[in-house]
Amino acid sequence: MSATPGEIERVYLSTEHARVNRLAAEWMREVGMKSRQDAAGNQLGRLEAAEHGAPALMIGSHLDTVPDAGRFDGIVGVLIGLEVVRLLRQPGPGDTWISPFPFALEVVAFSDEEGTRFGKALLGSSAVAGTWEKEWWALADKDGTTLRQAFLEFGLDPARVGEASRRPEELIGYLEAHIEQGPELDRRGESLAVVSSIASARRFQLVVEGEARHAGGTPYDMRRDALLGASEAALAVERICASEHHIIGTVGQLEAFPGAVNIVPGEARFSLDLRGEFDGQRDQVWNAISRDLDTIMGRRHLRWTAREIHNAPAVMCAPLLQDVVREGIVSTLAPGSDAPATIFSRAGHDGMSIGAITDVGMLFLRNPDGISHHPDELVSGGDVALGIRALAESVLQLSADKA
Amino acid sequence: MSATPGEIERVYLSTEHARVNRLAAEWMREVGMKSRQDAAGNQLGRLEAAEHGAPALMIGSHLDTVPDAGRFDGIVGVLIGLEVVRLLRQPGPGDTWISPFPFALEVVAFSDEEGTRFGKALLGSSAVAGTWEKEWWALADKDGTTLRQAFLEFGLDPARVGEASRRPEELIGYLEAHIEQGPELDRRGESLAVVSSIASARRFQLVVEGEARHAGGTPYDMRRDALLGASEAALAVERICASEHHIIGTVGQLEAFPGAVNIVPGEARFSLDLRGEFDGQRDQVWNAISRDLDTIMGRRHLRWTAREIHNAPAVMCAPLLQDVVREGIVSTLAPGSDAPATIFSRAGHDGMSIGAITDVGMLFLRNPDGISHHPDELVSGGDVALGIRALAESVLQLSADKA
Repeated sequence: MSATPGEIERVYLSTEHARVNRLAAEWMREVGMKSRQDAAGNQLGRLEAAEHGAPALMIGSHLDTVPDAGRFDGIVGVLIGLEVVRLLRQPGPGDTWISPFPFALEVVAFSDEEGTRFGKALLGSSAVAGTWEKEWWALADKDGTTLRQAFLEFGLDPARVGEASRRPEELIGYLEAHIEQGPELDRRGESLAVVSSIASARRFQLVVEGEARHAGGTPYDMRRDALLGASEAALAVERICASEHHIIGTVGQLEAFPGAVNIVPGEARFSLDLRGEFDGQRDQVWNAISRDLDTIMGRRHLRWTAREIHNAPAVMCAPLLQDVVREGIVSTLAPGSDAPATIFSRAGHDGMSIGAITDVGMLFLRNPDGISHHPDELVSGGDVALGIRALAESVLQLSADKA
Repeated sequence: MSATPGEIERVYLSTEHARVNRLAAEWMREVGMKSRQDAAGNQLGRLEAAEHGAPALMIGSHLDTVPDAGRFDGIVGVLIGLEVVRLLRQPGPGDTWISPFPFALEVVAFSDEEGTRFGKALLGSSAVAGTWEKEWWALADKDGTTLRQAFLEFGLDPARVGEASRRPEELIGYLEAHIEQGPELDRRGESLAVVSSIASARRFQLVVEGEARHAGGTPYDMRRDALLGASEAALAVERICASEHHIIGTVGQLEAFPGAVNIVPGEARFSLDLRGEFDGQRDQVWNAISRDLDTIMGRRHLRWTAREIHNAPAVMCAPLLQDVVREGIVSTLAPGSDAPATIFSRAGHDGMSIGAITDVGMLFLRNPDGISHHPDELVSGGDVALGIRALAESVLQLSADKA
C-alpha cells in the first residue's frame, strides 16, 4: 500500500491511508476488537473489559510513513499491539473476546506521525490529545492542497475533528513499541530497551532572499546569491550542533529558485529539524544558529526569515510505565543478564502528543546499524517476537500494580 | 504570451512558443518578408534581393525565455532585426518589397536559446547550424517529457530536424543585437558596444550520493549527508571562480532528496554553469573544482558524479563584422566621441552555434544595473532606437564592403 510503486510511501489523508486503515480494521476485528476510524483518520480497535466502558490501556503506533520509507517504522508497533491483545484476551460472553483486566485494551493506529505531507508532525495523535490547532487547517502540501481540503477529500469533516479527542479519565496509559531509529541497541548487542524520554524537537522552514540575476553577466561583487547563503547556513547548523552533546540538527529539504541552470538563485528555502534531550539546551542552540545566520546573510546582503512549524517539549516517560516495560523486557532475558538499557529517544513519537492526556511508556526494538527512514531499515523477526512477549508481560505487570 | 500569469515564461515547444511564432510571422509579413517555421520550430522571415535565391545576411535573436524572465532578453533583438529590414527595404515588383543589396535579408527568431526546458541551451540555432546531436532526443523536461515527445506534441517531425540546417554558402553572415546582461555599459554611461567574442561555457549536472537516514536517530559520525556535501561544493565553486579573472561559476539549481524535513538527505543534485573568455582557463578551473569535490566528498564518505550537458568553446566575432558594427555605432555618436566599447560576452548567444556555418557579429545594448533574467530587466527606448540605427548602418557598411 504505497503511493510509489517499488517504494513505501503512505502519507496522511491519501488513498493509501484509507486502504491501510481498512486493513488495520480487519486485523483488529480478527483479534476480537471493535474497530472504528476516528474524526482525524486514526484507526482504533477496542476490547472491552468485563466492566463495559472501563478506562482503557492504549497500545499502538502509526501507519503513515516518510517517502521511500522502511517497512517497520510505525506499523510494527501497531502489529505488536495486536499480537499483545491476541496473547492476553480471554473468551467473553457468546462468541466474543474480552480484556481480562480491570481496564479495556485499545490498539491505536495513528494516521500521521511523520508529518510528511503537511510538514507538521503528530497530527493524528494531536487530534486524540485534543491539542489540534485551528491554524493547521491552512497548511498545504507540495501540490497546494490544504489540510482542510484534504480532510474533505478523504471524507472527514474538519468541523468535527474535536470528536477524535479523548478525556484523561478514559485512559490509564499509552504503551508503544517502536524501532529505535538509531544504532544504540545494535552497538550494545541487545534486543530491547526501555525509553526514558522522547526528545525535545523544533522544526523551522527558512527562506533566504537575494536577487535572481543572469549567471553570465553578473560579476561576483554584484551578486546576492540566496543559495550560497543557504549552503553556508546548512554547514553552520552542522558545525554548531556537532559541537554540543545530545543535540542534533538536520537540513532535510533545500531548494533554489527560480532554479534555472543559468540564473543566480534569488531565493532558497530549506528546513531545519532540531532535537535535544533538554528543551533549554535545544533553544540555546537555535539562538546560536540564528546569530550565525545573521552574520552569514548580513555579509552576503541577503535577508532570512524562519517560520516555526513544530515545537514539542521533551516528554518524560512515566516512572511506573518505565518500570513495567523494564520488567517486561527482563522477563525475556536469560537469568543473570544485565539490566536492560534505558535510552532517550532522539526521534519524535506519538507519545509526545498523548503525554498531554495520559501516562506514556515506550519500548525500543533493535534497529541494525540504526538505518531508518530508508528501504534498508530492518528489525529481526526474533526481536519482534521478544518485543511482543515483553510488552504482553508489561501489561500483566501493570494490571498487577493497578490491582 | 507566458506559461505563468503575471510572469514571463516561454519555453521550447510549449503552446506559448507556438503563439509567439505566429505573432513573429505576422510581424515578418508586415515588413514584406515571407515567413516560415523551420523543422526545429525556429521562425524565419526572408526578403529576397533582386537576384532571387541570393545568399542572405541573417539578423535576429531568440524568442524563448528563462522562468520569470525580463521583457527584453532575446525578443528585443528579433524586433530590432525587423525594424532594420523596415528601414532598408525597397519597393520591388508589383506590391512587394525587396532587399536593395546583393544579398537577401533574413530575420530569424530562434526557438530555444536559454535551454530552460531541457537543460541544453542553443537547441534552435544548433538545428540551423546542422550540429543537432541524436542523443539530445532523450533529454527530458521536469515532467519527464522527452525532447522527442515534445517535438511530436508540437507538431514537428523529429526525423526531419535536419531540414532546418543551412549551408554556409546560403549565408553571408549573422548579426545580432542583444541586451548586455551585465553592468559594463551602464558603468561606462554608454548605450551600445561591439562584442569581441562570446564566452566559452560548460554546464554540468552533478549528483552527490550519500545515505538517507532518520534525522533524529543518526548521530553525526554515522551520517553521509549528501546535501552538506553539495553545500560545500557550491561554496567551493564560488571560492575558486572568484579568485580567477574572467571566470564565473554559478550553481543555479540545487535540490535534496528524498526531501523530507526529518530525513538526512541521501542524494543532492545541482547544476554548474562555468564561463570564461578562454577555453583553456575555463577547463583549468573545472579541473580545480573537480579536485576540490574529490576532497570534500571523500572526507564526507559521499560519491559524486558530473554529467556534462553543454560544452561550447569561445566564439570570436568575425573581424569584418566587428568593424561594421563599430562603424554602425559610431554613426549614432556625436562627432568627437570616444570610440565605442568592445567587450566580450560572458553570456551565451545563438552566435555560438551559428559560428559553425557563417561569420558572426554582435551589438550589445545597455542594460541598467546589469539586471537580466529577472522581471526588473530593462533597456531604454532610446537605446533601442540607437541600436536600430546602428545595426541598419552596419548593414549598409557591409553592403559597401561586399560591393
